[in-house]
Amino acid sequence: AKGVSNIILSTGGYSDMGEAGAKEQNEIIDQARKAGIRIMGPNSIGTLNPSAGMSTSIVGLDPIKAGGVSIIGQSGVFSSGWARWIAETKPFGLAKVSCIGNKGDINESDLLEYLTEDTQTTTIGMYLEGVVEGNRFVRAAGMACRSKPVVVMKAGRSEAGAIAVASHTGSLAGSDAVFDAVCRRTGLVRVHDSEAFFDTLSAFEKLPLPRGNRMGVLSITGMGCVAATDAAEEYGIVLPGLQPGTLKRLGEVMPSWAPVRNPIDTWSAIEQHGSKKATSHIAQSLMGQKDVDALLITFVLMPESMFDIPEAFAEIFSRHQDKPVFASYYGGTAREIAHIHEGFAALGVPCYPTPERAMFAFGRMVDYARFRGAIRR
Amino acid sequence: AKGVSNIILSTGGYSDMGEAGAKEQNEIIDQARKAGIRIMGPNSIGTLNPSAGMSTSIVGLDPIKAGGVSIIGQSGVFSSGWARWIAETKPFGLAKVSCIGNKGDINESDLLEYLTEDTQTTTIGMYLEGVVEGNRFVRAAGMACRSKPVVVMKAGRSEAGAIAVASHTGSLAGSDAVFDAVCRRTGLVRVHDSEAFFDTLSAFEKLPLPRGNRMGVLSITGMGCVAATDAAEEYGIVLPGLQPGTLKRLGEVMPSWAPVRNPIDTWSAIEQHGSKKATSHIAQSLMGQKDVDALLITFVLMPESMFDIPEAFAEIFSRHQDKPVFASYYGGTAREIAHIHEGFAALGVPCYPTPERAMFAFGRMVDYARFRGAIRR
Repeated sequence: AKGVSNIILSTGGYSDMGEAGAKEQNEIIDQARKAGIRIMGPNSIGTLNPSAGMSTSIVGLDPIKAGGVSIIGQSGVFSSGWARWIAETKPFGLAKVSCIGNKGDINESDLLEYLTEDTQTTTIGMYLEGVVEGNRFVRAAGMACRSKPVVVMKAGRSEAGAIAVASHTGSLAGSDAVFDAVCRRTGLVRVHDSEAFFDTLSAFEKLPLPRGNRMGVLSITGMGCVAATDAAEEYGIVLPGLQPGTLKRLGEVMPSWAPVRNPIDTWSAIEQHGSKKATSHIAQSLMGQKDVDALLITFVLMPESMFDIPEAFAEIFSRHQDKPVFASYYGGTAREIAHIHEGFAALGVPCYPTPERAMFAFGRMVDYARFRGAIRR
Repeated sequence: AKGVSNIILSTGGYSDMGEAGAKEQNEIIDQARKAGIRIMGPNSIGTLNPSAGMSTSIVGLDPIKAGGVSIIGQSGVFSSGWARWIAETKPFGLAKVSCIGNKGDINESDLLEYLTEDTQTTTIGMYLEGVVEGNRFVRAAGMACRSKPVVVMKAGRSEAGAIAVASHTGSLAGSDAVFDAVCRRTGLVRVHDSEAFFDTLSAFEKLPLPRGNRMGVLSITGMGCVAATDAAEEYGIVLPGLQPGTLKRLGEVMPSWAPVRNPIDTWSAIEQHGSKKATSHIAQSLMGQKDVDALLITFVLMPESMFDIPEAFAEIFSRHQDKPVFASYYGGTAREIAHIHEGFAALGVPCYPTPERAMFAFGRMVDYARFRGAIRR
């Protein structure tokens, strides 16, 4: 057809099918190239561009909030099941999604170079099963990471996984240790499962890069304080001690008999002053301490502790826009979970079902901030 | 008061407050003992017994499905936020929950011994910040694990975490390596965060103990096959090759050009026969293979793939009641997620938001089945 410059080939059965399929694939791509046509696929289920209202997915989708996250997926789930989840849950806004399939022509380096230049895209996520052009990928990744965070989930980590990869998209997964080294050198932020992938993208998309790895933590449950302390050690996060000025401010809501250290167990203050006043006052006290680079607030979800979140925190957070804030919670009903997600979303604060997941995401931000030189040491 | 034989002390500020508080706590408990009264707490927020319709929690709760899981929690969240979550989400039914707080009198060994004898309780979950009577705990754990699985989440794993523990419940967390050794020796199933805790309890509660670590996997997305393969290696699960008989049965729904291996990518069969027929036929073929000890089915949630789950699988699963079945999914809307959770719940199959989380739970079951001698090797 005249004027067609790009084709999405959604059929499988090419390089994922072994040598015969790979040969057929190469023939199609040769012909397309001669005609000046670029091909995405085979085995691609489509692309999304929410701000243009465009979807070539073969699956029914609701409108998706436009935003800064672009995803390169070597699997169709990013234009199908997860696109449906993102449309409803809004963990972040989307710029572009491309499901690249077997990468007969257009590959991850093409798209990484494109997204590095794309002004709509501020954060990139990649799910890869293999890398086609090693040297080019290393260059493209290095360039991309100098201007925006790139979160990578790479499959085929095990030997058996690498064989499964070949069957899915016909890729060679390569050595996992080599890929790890590439990540360290280029600044790619690596994660190992889909929950960690979306958790981390959400943090990068919503929050400023931290200027250090020191976090202030408050939790209505002592268990949250303990879990955060264990997770901090695991993810290289420091929980700085409280300064005299901070302790003085905390004294305005904490009873004199309560032990006060970071992480702060807010229960006794909440008993005396209610959830809203106690939590916002403690958050403000922690944020005001110079060597606190980021904040984590942990709730236990129950009707007794639900309050107007934007009203409680908007002013405090806007006064410290350079300090990333994370929220997390334990339990609760679907309604309570929706209330807390929406309340913090209105403030641009990502919200996680456990403190550990919030701190994992912060740890990845710290890694990237170090790579960018935003954190010394 | 005459006739009171047990007291729950919900106030904090005792051993969690250092020496003075600990002294006061000891005085109270001495007095109670002289009067023949046992105390739970201080710092306990209550207990639950759904089959008796009893709750002493200080938090508002909806009725909870009665079942076989009992939880010993050294934190109040198990009678508050998580009890609310369990009431609504029904990941399993509950027998008893006790939040033991600072354990001035009644401690984890008392309760573990009690629950070992309790006929309502078939699976035990413990969140511990420390162990009061080391030798007694090792004996109690050994006894408990001989008759029912005990899943333990133990905090204070890091040095700083151990200090945070002292501040929360006044416990001594002890050496984490020692606790790990105790788990290996007694058969305790250890997990490290709350998602893993509930995921694993749900699997033990719903499923028979596996007779081996060999899993058949089917997934509508190739990414699910790859993720499952990586996770299998990580969690010590074997994905056995397909036998000639299985391949023949699979040939009835898989097109001849499709590659067929375990994990099975079901996409091509679904294109030809629809989700319900293809998925149930493939599940049946895998379950019929002798050296398949367990099954994992992974969906991508979208309207196109939703069908009557009990109708599709009830007969197949009932024919293989000795083989645990797990379901998992990628993405989807809240409604689609509820559909799949409810559909599999009706079949007694636990359902997880990623294949990795399902396989983690299976891996913990395999560990415990080995301890019980249900798996040789």
